[in-house]
Amino acid sequence: MSQRLTRRRLIQVGAAGAAASALPTAAFAASKKTKKADVAIVGAGFSGLVAARALAAKGHSVVVLEARDRVGGRTQNASIAGGKAIAEVGGEFVGPTQDRILALAKAVDVDTFPVYNKGNNVFIARGQRAFYDATVGIPNDPEVQAGLGALLEVDAIGKAVGVAAPWKHSKAKQYDAQTLAQFLATKNLSATALAVLDAVCEAIWGADPTELSLLYVAQYVAAAGNAKTPGSFVRLIATGGGAQEQRIVGGSVVIAEKVADKLGSRIILKAPVEKIREHDGVVTITTRGGPTVVAKRAIVAVPPVLAARIAFAPGLPSSKKTLLKAMTPGSLTKVEAVYDTPFWRETGLSGQGVSDTGLARVPYDNSPPDGSVGVYFSFIGGKRHGEWAALSAADRRARVLDDFVRFTGDERARTPSEYLEKDWTTETWTRGCPVGHFAPGVLSKHGAQLRAAHGRIHFAGTETSDYWLGYMDGAVRAGERAAHEVHSKL
Amino acid sequence: MSQRLTRRRLIQVGAAGAAASALPTAAFAASKKTKKADVAIVGAGFSGLVAARALAAKGHSVVVLEARDRVGGRTQNASIAGGKAIAEVGGEFVGPTQDRILALAKAVDVDTFPVYNKGNNVFIARGQRAFYDATVGIPNDPEVQAGLGALLEVDAIGKAVGVAAPWKHSKAKQYDAQTLAQFLATKNLSATALAVLDAVCEAIWGADPTELSLLYVAQYVAAAGNAKTPGSFVRLIATGGGAQEQRIVGGSVVIAEKVADKLGSRIILKAPVEKIREHDGVVTITTRGGPTVVAKRAIVAVPPVLAARIAFAPGLPSSKKTLLKAMTPGSLTKVEAVYDTPFWRETGLSGQGVSDTGLARVPYDNSPPDGSVGVYFSFIGGKRHGEWAALSAADRRARVLDDFVRFTGDERARTPSEYLEKDWTTETWTRGCPVGHFAPGVLSKHGAQLRAAHGRIHFAGTETSDYWLGYMDGAVRAGERAAHEVHSKL
Repeated sequence: MSQRLTRRRLIQVGAAGAAASALPTAAFAASKKTKKADVAIVGAGFSGLVAARALAAKGHSVVVLEARDRVGGRTQNASIAGGKAIAEVGGEFVGPTQDRILALAKAVDVDTFPVYNKGNNVFIARGQRAFYDATVGIPNDPEVQAGLGALLEVDAIGKAVGVAAPWKHSKAKQYDAQTLAQFLATKNLSATALAVLDAVCEAIWGADPTELSLLYVAQYVAAAGNAKTPGSFVRLIATGGGAQEQRIVGGSVVIAEKVADKLGSRIILKAPVEKIREHDGVVTITTRGGPTVVAKRAIVAVPPVLAARIAFAPGLPSSKKTLLKAMTPGSLTKVEAVYDTPFWRETGLSGQGVSDTGLARVPYDNSPPDGSVGVYFSFIGGKRHGEWAALSAADRRARVLDDFVRFTGDERARTPSEYLEKDWTTETWTRGCPVGHFAPGVLSKHGAQLRAAHGRIHFAGTETSDYWLGYMDGAVRAGERAAHEVHSKL
Repeated sequence: MSQRLTRRRLIQVGAAGAAASALPTAAFAASKKTKKADVAIVGAGFSGLVAARALAAKGHSVVVLEARDRVGGRTQNASIAGGKAIAEVGGEFVGPTQDRILALAKAVDVDTFPVYNKGNNVFIARGQRAFYDATVGIPNDPEVQAGLGALLEVDAIGKAVGVAAPWKHSKAKQYDAQTLAQFLATKNLSATALAVLDAVCEAIWGADPTELSLLYVAQYVAAAGNAKTPGSFVRLIATGGGAQEQRIVGGSVVIAEKVADKLGSRIILKAPVEKIREHDGVVTITTRGGPTVVAKRAIVAVPPVLAARIAFAPGLPSSKKTLLKAMTPGSLTKVEAVYDTPFWRETGLSGQGVSDTGLARVPYDNSPPDGSVGVYFSFIGGKRHGEWAALSAADRRARVLDDFVRFTGDERARTPSEYLEKDWTTETWTRGCPVGHFAPGVLSKHGAQLRAAHGRIHFAGTETSDYWLGYMDGAVRAGERAAHEVHSKL
């Protein structure tokens, strides 16, 4: 199966009924003529779409310029089981305190359903396979728990630095001078604990503790909540009560598609933005192959690494440029196997687990809500992603299915009817998933630029959110925030 | 100073202005005649007062029978510094998610203020004194953090069993068959970690992990939140963002006194209830030295151990009797020292800390909001309470002040202008603080009786709350719940 899923595949999914009414119906043909609008929005991921939706609702004219031939950014469906079902190959989970994505899903009449979370999770460590209660969700292992205990200090640092401006905290430089790995190295943790924390970070950021600034991690953890409920590392990890609690009926991308549907021809696909120039009180946006747009204001709602490739005139302040370039996209892939049934449930397994070895270390049951087909997937991120990417396609498949057999304890895992891979790092218009991260030294120095507008050019995208950055919810919040910013200036 | 603070002292506090308008103005003289009311409420702590307030607001006539000569239950002020200030000798802290006590404070026009939480906390372990950031609030110690990590599993068990009916969970018996200490013994924790967890539990429950059912602890932890925000052990421990975040201007008892003030002569002091008899569609309540009350319904809002001493006719079901008797009141004392100034602040100390040794292991800065006087206190609970109670008054004082010198690193701590002790275990009408707890085997078997009415007799008190049992907030919630129950039957 091709790693690059095409729009045609998505249409097949829709035609098969899994997401029947979810695709935008307007013709999105690119046009070379100059368009005028109050606001030009770059990127039709969740953040850009939500910004457009909010501004349109206020009566402003908008144009959304999207480089790809589809909307939804880091969310995407793949058709599986001969079109009878879908599997999400990008962002898919939502959970409590992710208020804005949940409100959006409701607004566009899309339902959520709980991730399968019954029976036992599997904990593989030190060559042994053990079980722990899925509803408890924390391996009953002293070494791992010691590691989680150290993360409580990260929670507390996050609480202290806050989500609004962590770079302003009196100890910001101190926290930002070290990696999460350096912090953890002071905690006398066992090799197993460190391996499990690596696996957890690889799934959360597509990066390892050695790559992550402690300040960045602390604020990211603080962001895993809302104004009433402080964030915690456990909420990032957890299924029940956490960031993996719920899924979206029909696939998360359906929400984006429904928003896009209402925006109709205001969205222009296959129109990669090359240049954004502010002059004479307007912003002129030049695309490659698409129209030129002249607008009163612009919102850039693409991953920072892509924003950094746009030519701005006048140029971005060097601090902002540094920040955008330094926000490294995660290295994350989702590997998925489709089976006739979710057979692991027969032996009382939830499908979830964590392992200190293997390529696929953080698996989930990704079956459709009715369980009519079994879908099992794992994240492969950070160092593991590098190992995985260096293998041949056959070896990748063999190694991953080996891991699935170890988790499920069932040889049936070796012979799926379909096997899917989605490597977001090779996507030109994403460059990595799930989120950009900072190594030490960036956030404390350049953080003030994160949400800062550049003249009439504003910035959205999940990376600019206060809460739930890195998640669909953060994308929605950032889009709403940017729309609010722009609206107040129009 | 006497351990038994009298109403006269409180009046002095009021007269000095610290809580000037807070005392009930109605005459509460006990009367021997028979009174009639829609609802008779036993106990004028927060729970009983709130139940009375809610029912009175619905137009029902109420009589509140209180054994003591004061209202407020487990909250109480002591006048200090020649009447210039007060120190709370009972429950005093409130924090986020304690929505009902915060709403009540607001409703009666009482303000909160943040607990002093700046600079460094002190961590004393293995004979060393170290510092950690007060706003972070978690000792930067791998051994302690490993212990806190184990408590994350308790959080998760709490989340799984929930607050509504933990006894119904499929693993309730399994969790209720072990003590917290037995659970912790499987976690390979160091002696220091276990000592710190002992100190934490002694402050939270006035009991040690060896005395506490894991199921009880798990649901208590789950209760440290609200319907939107799941509870956590860290929220029980924390100052910023946790259960010790805020204090009440004028002292927590002022809230109770203001509620009582409005209830006026509906409260009858010095009227200990001896018997509650249901007959002929009414409830007759007999007091020792006070009136007999005939009511349509009754609410018992006293600690379970005291409820168990009331003679009920017809008798309580044996399961309920067992439950009430088994809910052991905590052994907790607050020892407080008053100084001219909060001198520890001069050297950048918050006043807070934790120690693996000594009698006073969990101290706080308890100074009035303006810092005009320095007040330092520590909890002494569980085993430590037993050690403390066995000493002479002079030895108690010397040992505690020794600990205060160790925490503050300042010899001035040895010579306070006043030294206060409040031992709630010796209070006839409380029998222990802050809350009743269960050893293994009770909650899973008899939990359904916790909030169960007995005919026309309903039960309130913080121990019967779903959220924040053991706290003033739980008392308010329980009072409101009982009032709602009764109102729906009248």
